[in-house]
Amino acid sequence: MVSSSFRATLLKLGVPEDRLAVLEGKGGVVEGEFEGIRYVRFRDSAKGFRRGTVVFENGDVVLGFPHIKRVVQLGRGIKRVFKNRPFYVEEKVDGYNVRVVKVKDRVLALTRGGFICPFTTERILDFINDEFFKDYPNLVLAGEMAGPESPYIVEGPPYVKEDIEFFLFDIQEKGTGRSLPVEERYKLAEEYGIEQVERFGLFNRSRIDELYDLIERLSREKREGVVMKTPDMKRIAKYVTPYANINDIKIGSHIFFDLPHGYFMGRIKRLAFYLAEKHLRGEEFDEYAKALGKALLRPFVESIHEVANGGEVEEVFTVRVKSISTAHKMVTHFERLGVKIHIEDIEDLGNGYWRITFKRVYPDATREIRELWNGRAFVD
Amino acid sequence: MVSSSFRATLLKLGVPEDRLAVLEGKGGVVEGEFEGIRYVRFRDSAKGFRRGTVVFENGDVVLGFPHIKRVVQLGRGIKRVFKNRPFYVEEKVDGYNVRVVKVKDRVLALTRGGFICPFTTERILDFINDEFFKDYPNLVLAGEMAGPESPYIVEGPPYVKEDIEFFLFDIQEKGTGRSLPVEERYKLAEEYGIEQVERFGLFNRSRIDELYDLIERLSREKREGVVMKTPDMKRIAKYVTPYANINDIKIGSHIFFDLPHGYFMGRIKRLAFYLAEKHLRGEEFDEYAKALGKALLRPFVESIHEVANGGEVEEVFTVRVKSISTAHKMVTHFERLGVKIHIEDIEDLGNGYWRITFKRVYPDATREIRELWNGRAFVD
Repeated sequence: MVSSSFRATLLKLGVPEDRLAVLEGKGGVVEGEFEGIRYVRFRDSAKGFRRGTVVFENGDVVLGFPHIKRVVQLGRGIKRVFKNRPFYVEEKVDGYNVRVVKVKDRVLALTRGGFICPFTTERILDFINDEFFKDYPNLVLAGEMAGPESPYIVEGPPYVKEDIEFFLFDIQEKGTGRSLPVEERYKLAEEYGIEQVERFGLFNRSRIDELYDLIERLSREKREGVVMKTPDMKRIAKYVTPYANINDIKIGSHIFFDLPHGYFMGRIKRLAFYLAEKHLRGEEFDEYAKALGKALLRPFVESIHEVANGGEVEEVFTVRVKSISTAHKMVTHFERLGVKIHIEDIEDLGNGYWRITFKRVYPDATREIRELWNGRAFVD
Repeated sequence: MVSSSFRATLLKLGVPEDRLAVLEGKGGVVEGEFEGIRYVRFRDSAKGFRRGTVVFENGDVVLGFPHIKRVVQLGRGIKRVFKNRPFYVEEKVDGYNVRVVKVKDRVLALTRGGFICPFTTERILDFINDEFFKDYPNLVLAGEMAGPESPYIVEGPPYVKEDIEFFLFDIQEKGTGRSLPVEERYKLAEEYGIEQVERFGLFNRSRIDELYDLIERLSREKREGVVMKTPDMKRIAKYVTPYANINDIKIGSHIFFDLPHGYFMGRIKRLAFYLAEKHLRGEEFDEYAKALGKALLRPFVESIHEVANGGEVEEVFTVRVKSISTAHKMVTHFERLGVKIHIEDIEDLGNGYWRITFKRVYPDATREIRELWNGRAFVD
């Protein structure tokens, strides 16, 4: 449900009245609050308001971050998406997507789903210079939060050794969601000292061999992949490394029953297309096969043994915060997401930060393993 | 839709009138015809009439074959299903399920879905002595048709070197679907010379180590698994070998996009529980991992290359028939199932049999691969 003042705002912004009624009926628009800031988030899309869109009381609109299309055949994908146009290649960083925006006097970090994230919001000014928003209050910084101490992601990229960092990959306008051209973004980021994802330069399809080499190198370096963008940001496509496909499966296999089948099958598909495109065979092929098999089976079998020995399927992760109350707000935030989590440990790092250790339990995955291990007979 | 005479029969047999109306509305009961024999098959279940149930004009009812429950933890599964009861262990043969029944003067073979199979019906008296039905017209022989020349299954068990064979594993009463006790079945099969699935004898849970050894042997011998049954047939459970899980994945990977994700994920799950139960580690574990990875990737990558080179995803199989018209009836039968198939070759074996070679094309899987190979960008 949405309060009457927000209803008025949404109608004024152009959400059709009948569509709004439908969305409200099924919880497609939800009102939330964070430290006195009231906002509405779109769980479904509605006429230009993409899923994940956030609307604030003052009428500010931050559109949901669009889903970037994926290609699984790099050479032909590039040909089909970009034709003869040049395109910038940037690193696809393995973290979680945030949109950073200033609303009234607060710089806020929005998750993909349209929540104001208490953790990221507390930390965001460690990474982004507020001067940017003083000069450009109408722009949204979209980037990846990545590192080994993250509340949403189990691993980070290899080059973030501790804590977490912000990597800019898009700047959009409030309201329209329109992206700045690539070069403008590069310039602004440099001007304001905002860390960006690694940029590999301007390519075109005649340089496909260099792109293949880049993918090989990123895969060797345990990095996720690339996002390719025309300078005007009108055409965008992503491609991930075989390393990332296998590593995601390894991470997912630990909580096997908590993930949809498509999580695993999609990555197996991508890996198969990589092997086919590169015409790998013999020992090289078998190495990938073995890595895939181990990624699927090892963490899963470990979880089975864990549960067989009376334990639970769980993940432990840490974050660094300035205020312990932020950790408690994260617990509340996760509860809202239906995630069972609790604080395991709080450690004073002595530099103004606390390291909070959380444990996330997967009750459904645990129960499923326990039942099967205990010999349940089932029809499939 | 069902004709009025069948409606009357079904109502007389106790199908509730309102349920029948619902079933008819959604195609849950379908009337069919085979060589002048009219029948109704249940695509959904209704009050005691299991899915796959077939009703004939004379009122004969052959109940759908029940789905046998699976355990993935053999030791604890046995304990949970059988407690201290003894149970017979029989081979689970990798083929397709048929129910063989005499209706009026014809011996017919019904598929799991309740079709009269033209191929199996033509061949069934090669394997089953008609004398049985003269003495027991009220009984249904349920068994597995298995071998390298099968219309429904790509591979057969290793000990069927050519053609196909029938292996009895259950005898049920018409109408009630009640199974004969195990010993009675064994006796009748021997008496009438009907080939049975291999029987490994009466076990109980104190002999679990022998059962583990049996599973290891069957897996080494490339066999599918076991079905365990109390002598009164009241409790039944199945368990498959790691070989069969991996081999099924290998067969399925060839037509990757034509199968539901659960096909692959279910078998990965079973394999993981096998590895966990046997506490395999080190090299032994890695061998299974490699075999799994290769099973998932190799046939899939081969199919991608096949399509990339302008081909299609397809399977070729052969069957032996006495009459070429049976082959044509099979094509019609497959068309009814929505399967695209055509006859590739007809060869006179000179012994009263023809070998028919069919090619089955998978247009959806082919199209999906072609699109992805051609660089389609997609949101997932």
